[in-house]
Amino acid sequence: MTRPQQQPLLGILGGMGPLATVDFLGKLTRLVPAHCDQDHLPWLTLSQPDMPDRSSAIRDGDDRPREWLAKGVAWLAEQGVSLIALPCSTSHFWFEAMQEASSVPIMHIADATVEELRLSPLPRSGKVAVLATRGTIRSGMYSARLRAADFQVVVPDEAGQMKVDRIIAQVKAGEGSAARQEMQLLQAELSRQGVAALVLGCTELPLACDHRSADGLPAVDVSLALARACLRRLGYLD
Amino acid sequence: MTRPQQQPLLGILGGMGPLATVDFLGKLTRLVPAHCDQDHLPWLTLSQPDMPDRSSAIRDGDDRPREWLAKGVAWLAEQGVSLIALPCSTSHFWFEAMQEASSVPIMHIADATVEELRLSPLPRSGKVAVLATRGTIRSGMYSARLRAADFQVVVPDEAGQMKVDRIIAQVKAGEGSAARQEMQLLQAELSRQGVAALVLGCTELPLACDHRSADGLPAVDVSLALARACLRRLGYLD
Repeated sequence: MTRPQQQPLLGILGGMGPLATVDFLGKLTRLVPAHCDQDHLPWLTLSQPDMPDRSSAIRDGDDRPREWLAKGVAWLAEQGVSLIALPCSTSHFWFEAMQEASSVPIMHIADATVEELRLSPLPRSGKVAVLATRGTIRSGMYSARLRAADFQVVVPDEAGQMKVDRIIAQVKAGEGSAARQEMQLLQAELSRQGVAALVLGCTELPLACDHRSADGLPAVDVSLALARACLRRLGYLD
Repeated sequence: MTRPQQQPLLGILGGMGPLATVDFLGKLTRLVPAHCDQDHLPWLTLSQPDMPDRSSAIRDGDDRPREWLAKGVAWLAEQGVSLIALPCSTSHFWFEAMQEASSVPIMHIADATVEELRLSPLPRSGKVAVLATRGTIRSGMYSARLRAADFQVVVPDEAGQMKVDRIIAQVKAGEGSAARQEMQLLQAELSRQGVAALVLGCTELPLACDHRSADGLPAVDVSLALARACLRRLGYLD
């Protein structure tokens, strides 16, 4: 790409889903301590909501997302971006294939989450529940890293996972208030099961959290964690 | 660009300002009647907040934005987008140069606004005030089109324009609540002057409107108008 001036560009592969991508871009923008447009981070986002569903692909052993993801990051790298982010946990199932296809580093969303946890005041005692798609849960990307950082990790049982699936589908279908109601019920149930904190391990889930309600469990938003980690790498945050 | 599947892509040149771009992308996403990711519109956005300020360039007769804008749209066109949108009114000062540089059509934000007005229940009687940057006001892009559509158009006096300038700068600096306060005062003043409706002719201004407050004047949001017009062109809305 030819730009009249060359400042570091962040490359973002999005659309998985589309609202989660917009939510990530909003977080990225609001986190920058900027006084005017020119203080902000330039970025390039390709939003491809038309790619095959990642979670069902993992379930069915269908490898079609690999081509979309590898081509997407390779194309971003060719445009001269300095770092790539994917505001979609499930896509990180194909992380190695993507990193191999890209000549620039990709910030892993679960590494960003652990970085965020290290800097957060979240209690180390008590169980942390990972809420994510079945594909992400199956990959173990969050559980493995959290256990390595000495957290007690739990994942929802089948009834709980069905609720998580439903919340994600509701956000993707634009049914925000139904998603928020379902999330409140799920949080109350997890709290009764002794869960002390949540990792919102799918970028749709923060969109189902009602920040106006005070009865939610403390939660790490992986989308916010990814935005912060990218801004730190590119020198926009300490 | 090589994508495994070729659906029409919307190209967006953004960053002017960054929050207004995210706001536009959010509107674009929420307007699509989608049930899952795959129903959504694919898009490609280049956000260049580091380009020179448009309004002061127009004031000072500085033509540097032309190169950024022309290169930006030319690059988007080369990537195979079907239509280009710029969620920034002031940049449309260089519309002809951009359209000349781009092999694909650019949706003019003021044409989209007139299209929106034609479809809206806004009263035809009474004065419509155009709120925008000094550069946009000077270009007359909204006034000319609104007068041609039989609206009585007014623009703020110097004291009013200073308030508009301040609101836009506050949104760009992330000072949302100060911007909303200032906007409420300005609306009350315009209402006293007999203004019946507003054209929020700068994509930062909708971000300063408090939708929870009922005492605002009816307003056309040019960012929403642009999103709707693009979705109609690409077959996502009737």
